[in-house]
Amino acid sequence: MRFCEKYAPENALRSGLELFSKNKQMKLHAEIITIGDEILIGQTIDSNAAWLGAELTLLGFSVRYRQTVSDEKTDILSALQLAKSRADLVLITGGLGPTKDDITKKTLSDFFQANVVRNVEIEAHLRQFFALRNRPILPVNLAQADMPDKAEVLFNAMGTASGMLFEENKKVFISLPGVPYEMKHIMQTSGFEAIKKRLPLPVLTYKTLSTYGLGESFLAEKIKDFETEIRAEGFSLAYLPSFSVVKLRLGLSGSDAKTNEEKLNQKLDILKTQLKAYIFSETGEDFMPVLAKMLIKNNKTVAIAESCTAGALMSAFTELSGSSAYFKGGVVAYANAIKENQLYVDRDALEAYGAVSQVVVEQMALGVKNNLNADFGIATSGIAGPTGGTAEKPVGTVWIAVATNQDVYAKCFYFGKDRLRNVQYAVQNALGFFWEKTQKL
Amino acid sequence: MRFCEKYAPENALRSGLELFSKNKQMKLHAEIITIGDEILIGQTIDSNAAWLGAELTLLGFSVRYRQTVSDEKTDILSALQLAKSRADLVLITGGLGPTKDDITKKTLSDFFQANVVRNVEIEAHLRQFFALRNRPILPVNLAQADMPDKAEVLFNAMGTASGMLFEENKKVFISLPGVPYEMKHIMQTSGFEAIKKRLPLPVLTYKTLSTYGLGESFLAEKIKDFETEIRAEGFSLAYLPSFSVVKLRLGLSGSDAKTNEEKLNQKLDILKTQLKAYIFSETGEDFMPVLAKMLIKNNKTVAIAESCTAGALMSAFTELSGSSAYFKGGVVAYANAIKENQLYVDRDALEAYGAVSQVVVEQMALGVKNNLNADFGIATSGIAGPTGGTAEKPVGTVWIAVATNQDVYAKCFYFGKDRLRNVQYAVQNALGFFWEKTQKL
Repeated sequence: MRFCEKYAPENALRSGLELFSKNKQMKLHAEIITIGDEILIGQTIDSNAAWLGAELTLLGFSVRYRQTVSDEKTDILSALQLAKSRADLVLITGGLGPTKDDITKKTLSDFFQANVVRNVEIEAHLRQFFALRNRPILPVNLAQADMPDKAEVLFNAMGTASGMLFEENKKVFISLPGVPYEMKHIMQTSGFEAIKKRLPLPVLTYKTLSTYGLGESFLAEKIKDFETEIRAEGFSLAYLPSFSVVKLRLGLSGSDAKTNEEKLNQKLDILKTQLKAYIFSETGEDFMPVLAKMLIKNNKTVAIAESCTAGALMSAFTELSGSSAYFKGGVVAYANAIKENQLYVDRDALEAYGAVSQVVVEQMALGVKNNLNADFGIATSGIAGPTGGTAEKPVGTVWIAVATNQDVYAKCFYFGKDRLRNVQYAVQNALGFFWEKTQKL
Repeated sequence: MRFCEKYAPENALRSGLELFSKNKQMKLHAEIITIGDEILIGQTIDSNAAWLGAELTLLGFSVRYRQTVSDEKTDILSALQLAKSRADLVLITGGLGPTKDDITKKTLSDFFQANVVRNVEIEAHLRQFFALRNRPILPVNLAQADMPDKAEVLFNAMGTASGMLFEENKKVFISLPGVPYEMKHIMQTSGFEAIKKRLPLPVLTYKTLSTYGLGESFLAEKIKDFETEIRAEGFSLAYLPSFSVVKLRLGLSGSDAKTNEEKLNQKLDILKTQLKAYIFSETGEDFMPVLAKMLIKNNKTVAIAESCTAGALMSAFTELSGSSAYFKGGVVAYANAIKENQLYVDRDALEAYGAVSQVVVEQMALGVKNNLNADFGIATSGIAGPTGGTAEKPVGTVWIAVATNQDVYAKCFYFGKDRLRNVQYAVQNALGFFWEKTQKL
């Protein structure tokens, strides 16, 4: 197999751990408390805590603890007590719904010795919220307008449970609803600002490059000297890998954003020169926004033929709204008859080389491009597994082709034994190979 | 729009919370400790804790606390101390890799006052593990064979970090690697057995029915009397919704599995009678395994035409290994020209009714079935959003059709405003609608 590359699992250690995260003692500590039986029993995966952890890290906190407790007053109280003893900022999610007997709100009121009073603005918002949905408003719903008098309200335009901020002895506590988009909305509209106003955070600035084509450890080797130099100067560098894409996030802590920005841009220029051929976004974007902009700008369209990825590549290609501007459609050809009839792959080629071969994948890319009258064709053909592999073509072998109006290119990859991972790697590398072959547009 | 159904968001409260979970005080308490900066800073979402929480709940534990701490000895020690004071079982994941300086192992050895000794069996396993991969074995790798002498080793055939079990004052502590498939492998091969042997757990038995076609609250209303009756008799009933599928898990705690099984089967028979038309699996399976068995048994094949779902339905249809036995392939027709040329949809119909219409989706299903020479055709056409909606056909409107050799059926759904959710709901309802129309095979 020509060009066949082996996928090398990368060293996960560098991932996302910033240099200045090492100085944990010098930083403000953040703690996240998640309330809810549905999290403890594994009914729901706690994506809120991950999102908050990432955002707080970027703000300059050391996110050092996380607790998850059930909807029981005693458990919530001990979690709050413990967090108060060791963190500067405590974010609490969950337990605010009308059906939870307002247990979190009551507990927070007790913890901060506050009285609950009706908030007229929230009441008006709730009445409007229910009226818009033609639903009667019940006393249990109106009770969501009752707020502890020591809390600053963080308004929730997306739902019915408001956020609450408490401050005590220079420590900040924020309680948020558990519904992810409501929680994020509150933090983005008022929560983060409120934290920055109250706690002495450093000014942190980041710049992110998205790279494709070099594994994490090869990247690290390539920019070793640069990394040593900038770390000595106080910059941070995080490697953020996702399948075959590695984003490099350069960060600097300083006293003002403008100076940080200037210093970062100098280092970024060096990095851009060293990694030129591998950078597909200088603003940390993923493949699809980059490819969409390129296709729209050049008024070009794509058609796709998939075998082993079976629709997952087209699914990725249409993840952005407005994708019909550059994506025409395509064919999933699982059966060889469909490769012949819909994509005009030669029966002779299928018999001589098999479906997972350079000749066939190139014919698929050309066939779908011509047949669907598009400017580019992309094709995949591989063995997703776990069955169907041979000694010569083991499970995980995937051919990817890109056809243009001038030429057709193909490359063989080897991703490993797991069916789902194979498909995910194949999809991302098809986007990457397409980007490589269309860069000069 | 005929048959147009509105998606009703369901009451999330009942979900998965078993009746006998209410008696938290009477049960053994489990606590999960996750170790790792990558979890705290949100680089990785903690799916391990969710999986363990769900499994331990099924074993009869009250999973009451979760803590996440960084790779620091002091933090790990205080988490262990706290867990020891309140839980009967403590599961610890992460911090066992060779690059983590074995911090978790050292900390556990200190906590349990154990000495570290080389384990010859693990050493042999490690040497073989590296030899198979043609990688040199370094001292840091061999150190993974050093085990605390008070620990029972839980062997890890899938990787290099072994599990460890400690028992003290009738409390059980298990330390596991953070790599999800290694962690699960250890628990499934020896971890759960070791726990059952050591802690006085009840005998819990479960039976799960998978239903489609009735929302959670409608289901609950339909079986209200049954539910009241069985709960009074000590059975548990959990509603496990995932998009438009709701699984019903009936559980019983008793002294022996056989008696439990018999009692559960009696109740299950009543439930099956009451929900007959909605049950697609009596063993709690998802749609694809059920559909795959049906298609293979009857030697039938499927072809798929997708518009708004853009490959996601074919992706779902091929998630099982061996799917080429019943899936031939299909067409993603984003552009109307492709609906005409590849699927033989009438231009007149497209102009008169638009792409998102009963006439067009039926023609798509018939076209792909005939064109790809399959026994069944499935088609989707809708407005995924967030743009492209009109007053008459708002974002979230999706037509789904199923064509057989005798007839063609279509149904209109309305899923809401979010692009990704629309696609996910459309895929599951396409499988559900196909199941409904092929039940009599």
